[in-house]
Amino acid sequence: MQNAFYTLDAIINLVKPLNVKGHLTHTTLMGIASLDKALPTDLSFLGNLKYRPQVPQSKAGVILVPPSYLGEPHKEQVLLTVNDPSEALSVICRDLMLKNAPKVKPGVHPTAVVDPTAKVDPTAAIGPLCVVGAHSVIGDHVVLSAHVFVGEHVQIQSGAIIRPNCSLLDGTQIGKRCFIDAGVVLGSEGYGYTTVNGAHQRCPQIGCVVLEDDVDVGSNTTIDRARFEETRIGEGTKIDNLVQIAHNVVIGKHCFIVAFAGIAGSTHIGDYTTIAGQVGLAGHINIGSHVVVGAQSGVNHDLPDHSFVRGTPVFPFMLAHRIDNLKRRLPDLFKRVDNLEKVFAYLTDDAAKSCFLKQGDAK
Amino acid sequence: MQNAFYTLDAIINLVKPLNVKGHLTHTTLMGIASLDKALPTDLSFLGNLKYRPQVPQSKAGVILVPPSYLGEPHKEQVLLTVNDPSEALSVICRDLMLKNAPKVKPGVHPTAVVDPTAKVDPTAAIGPLCVVGAHSVIGDHVVLSAHVFVGEHVQIQSGAIIRPNCSLLDGTQIGKRCFIDAGVVLGSEGYGYTTVNGAHQRCPQIGCVVLEDDVDVGSNTTIDRARFEETRIGEGTKIDNLVQIAHNVVIGKHCFIVAFAGIAGSTHIGDYTTIAGQVGLAGHINIGSHVVVGAQSGVNHDLPDHSFVRGTPVFPFMLAHRIDNLKRRLPDLFKRVDNLEKVFAYLTDDAAKSCFLKQGDAK
Amino acid sequence: MQNAFYTLDAIINLVKPLNVKGHLTHTTLMGIASLDKALPTDLSFLGNLKYRPQVPQSKAGVILVPPSYLGEPHKEQVLLTVNDPSEALSVICRDLMLKNAPKVKPGVHPTAVVDPTAKVDPTAAIGPLCVVGAHSVIGDHVVLSAHVFVGEHVQIQSGAIIRPNCSLLDGTQIGKRCFIDAGVVLGSEGYGYTTVNGAHQRCPQIGCVVLEDDVDVGSNTTIDRARFEETRIGEGTKIDNLVQIAHNVVIGKHCFIVAFAGIAGSTHIGDYTTIAGQVGLAGHINIGSHVVVGAQSGVNHDLPDHSFVRGTPVFPFMLAHRIDNLKRRLPDLFKRVDNLEKVFAYLTDDAAKSCFLKQGDAK
Repeated sequence: MQNAFYTLDAIINLVKPLNVKGHLTHTTLMGIASLDKALPTDLSFLGNLKYRPQVPQSKAGVILVPPSYLGEPHKEQVLLTVNDPSEALSVICRDLMLKNAPKVKPGVHPTAVVDPTAKVDPTAAIGPLCVVGAHSVIGDHVVLSAHVFVGEHVQIQSGAIIRPNCSLLDGTQIGKRCFIDAGVVLGSEGYGYTTVNGAHQRCPQIGCVVLEDDVDVGSNTTIDRARFEETRIGEGTKIDNLVQIAHNVVIGKHCFIVAFAGIAGSTHIGDYTTIAGQVGLAGHINIGSHVVVGAQSGVNHDLPDHSFVRGTPVFPFMLAHRIDNLKRRLPDLFKRVDNLEKVFAYLTDDAAKSCFLKQGDAK
Repeated sequence: MQNAFYTLDAIINLVKPLNVKGHLTHTTLMGIASLDKALPTDLSFLGNLKYRPQVPQSKAGVILVPPSYLGEPHKEQVLLTVNDPSEALSVICRDLMLKNAPKVKPGVHPTAVVDPTAKVDPTAAIGPLCVVGAHSVIGDHVVLSAHVFVGEHVQIQSGAIIRPNCSLLDGTQIGKRCFIDAGVVLGSEGYGYTTVNGAHQRCPQIGCVVLEDDVDVGSNTTIDRARFEETRIGEGTKIDNLVQIAHNVVIGKHCFIVAFAGIAGSTHIGDYTTIAGQVGLAGHINIGSHVVVGAQSGVNHDLPDHSFVRGTPVFPFMLAHRIDNLKRRLPDLFKRVDNLEKVFAYLTDDAAKSCFLKQGDAK
Repeated sequence: MQNAFYTLDAIINLVKPLNVKGHLTHTTLMGIASLDKALPTDLSFLGNLKYRPQVPQSKAGVILVPPSYLGEPHKEQVLLTVNDPSEALSVICRDLMLKNAPKVKPGVHPTAVVDPTAKVDPTAAIGPLCVVGAHSVIGDHVVLSAHVFVGEHVQIQSGAIIRPNCSLLDGTQIGKRCFIDAGVVLGSEGYGYTTVNGAHQRCPQIGCVVLEDDVDVGSNTTIDRARFEETRIGEGTKIDNLVQIAHNVVIGKHCFIVAFAGIAGSTHIGDYTTIAGQVGLAGHINIGSHVVVGAQSGVNHDLPDHSFVRGTPVFPFMLAHRIDNLKRRLPDLFKRVDNLEKVFAYLTDDAAKSCFLKQGDAK
């Protein structure tokens, strides 16, 4: 597992650079990182020209640069000129993901229990002790690792990877190349009750969960089926471990939802929005696109596009930061007001009596 | 899965109304909702007469009303008069739950591993790849979906449903009609340690978890076994996904415990209490009945019956709301006190010197 | 399960006391507790002489005391004199843990799926429906309960216990006597992305998770593999249920990490530190040794050794407590400042005009 994953030659082979400058003694690269964070064993890239000044400072062993970048590498650094560094990077990422994918062989493991009405593509791999229910469809190159439960009428599209001990309950739909980490529950019962004579009756939940293409779901996260219609996660959205998404939530494309975020029922989120760790979103609210909600916030109202907020209740980041700083000074503020009142008492009781109060009464 | 679940005729057949008023073109109902939230495809009901004014505004396609309700339906709306609308609703709910229950056939799946000393009722369904340990008792009409682990000396009573990948550890007792969603852990080890010479020794936990009848537990929730005696969840209490309930907690009847609530060891909660999302309750405290603790609160002391609180520390809702509003005005408050001090400095330094300070000293 | 676990005779047999004083009618002990919390059915101990005054008040049925303790037992209490009470206690704890360990027989259950390249010690027990992947090594006396998934190149050392439905993903290393409760995921994919042309590309995570000896991990907790190198949990650290530990986190020895704590990527924690429930630690920070971070805190900066802090942002406990108290008085503070301003307006507008303003201008 700790094997190095790329040689410089392998990278050159993949991205086919226009030009190679510089030299590396060690030719093994261990990771991919942004310019400012890369280590000498990392590959980095200049994907956006505004980061151009970071290239000379970067410690990355190999940097993908566009033809317009004319700088020279450090000692022990290689610059690879490519037409589009971002695209070249994604070629490497995709290759790496395929290499890192579980090596389960295509076909159904003899210990798996697959309903005769389920359709499993011959290139899919159904690992040991998986269950696939009636009328489910498992697409090409899908991998179900082991101990995966697939209910009835579930659809899993091309190239999706489902890790061990996941429960994909009835009606769940999973898009292409989704990555569902271990222990995830998709399609659990929504938390909805009607109280009848003091007893809470479960409102039946007959909808489902839909993940569009390229959604990642972190381990032990839970996403509830809709009451009716769908709980939907948009294309390319990345969900961390231990997130809770309630029934009828709709999340847009390319969002980040970080660990312990809890999103209550029927709330909608736009595209490119980040919900940080331990945030709570109330039900039935609308969060716009390109919004950032900082860690541990509690939101109980709509937020327009491009909101950048934090706290409970939420404030704009700068105000939230200022309020945090003022909190520390609260004990001092109370003392200062105490002092002001003491002086006032003196003024109004003594001096004020003789000086002012002839003219009127200070209440 | 997305099939409609009820026709008007089917509802009439179930609740046997005294009277039917109005007309529906579409006769398919998709859900059940309260009067103010119902859509035209929903069934609703007038269960409590104080909601009577909501009936004429309700968009519900079908409303169950008592004989005393004499209003007329809208166009495309049907009013069904029944003796007790709440009871009629629960007849429908129960029917629906039975229809929606997993269609696993009674009997033990050939891939399940059942200890010869376990007793399984012939009407129970033990799904594929389940494990049932020694001396456990599985009651009538119980459904273990698939990949369910049942330890030793576990008791599961009539009609309980256990969804995939649950772990019901040794000694767990589950009441009638409980619904345990996927990935739940009941009877995990309590988090109790004695530190001996700098090393934390696990305090053995020899108690168990008891769920009374009609308890629901949401996916990936964890409930720890008691140190000794029982961790107990009262009848009809509904627990959301990803809740943590520590050892020796006792929760009363008909409570709601929402996602990410964490309840520390030995805390007791009364009946009809709501613990909202992301709330933390400290250990060894008593929370009364009919209490509401708002989302993200932190509680470290007892709360009497009918408390309605929020925040960290908790305040009554109205005060918590007011404090939240004042937070936003803190930067302004600091400025106002700065200004008051400036004027004071002027007064006491300049004018006050000549005017007041003959008579005494303002400290 | 509810059986008593120790008789007085059995304890005497284990700890071999120098002296036995007092008498117990019931001779069955149900638990172990500190002196101040013990019940008559508990065993307690005087491990640190500063707690000596608590011995006469303790209700414990049996107390382990050092030779220097000369007090007499209550009625229905037994004092056992031993050379080192802490050591004697750990003898009992260890014995109890062995007795309470799952009674799975050594050997591989016929329904388990073990790769031919995996090495399983003959004293290990691989329970029903477990999966053990290629090149993994299962040490002596290890217990995999049931439905446990062990990936490739996993190492589990002597005496570790893995409870049902755990996922130990590729490359995970588990030390001696670790206790991994049900539903735990070790080695899930780190949450790291590079955004390329608006799409988030998963940064491959090629590191692993390492648990040193005697680590406990609570049910449904998730620990991510490192991006490269290791996510490491130090010897004797005890992690509660539903904790999230991100990639490349390093936690020292003998720490407590309580439920719903979320530790973001690359953060380091020293030894003997407590991270209480629902705490969020930002990524890339350093938390010292012997630190206590109170429940629900949010920390986004380094904390030195022996910090004792709480809140968001964190303050020293006493200050945090004071700020909490002042929050309640905020509405009153705003009123007081309103009043001061009113008096001022009077002073400066009216009286001040005639009295002071001849001499200067109050701004």
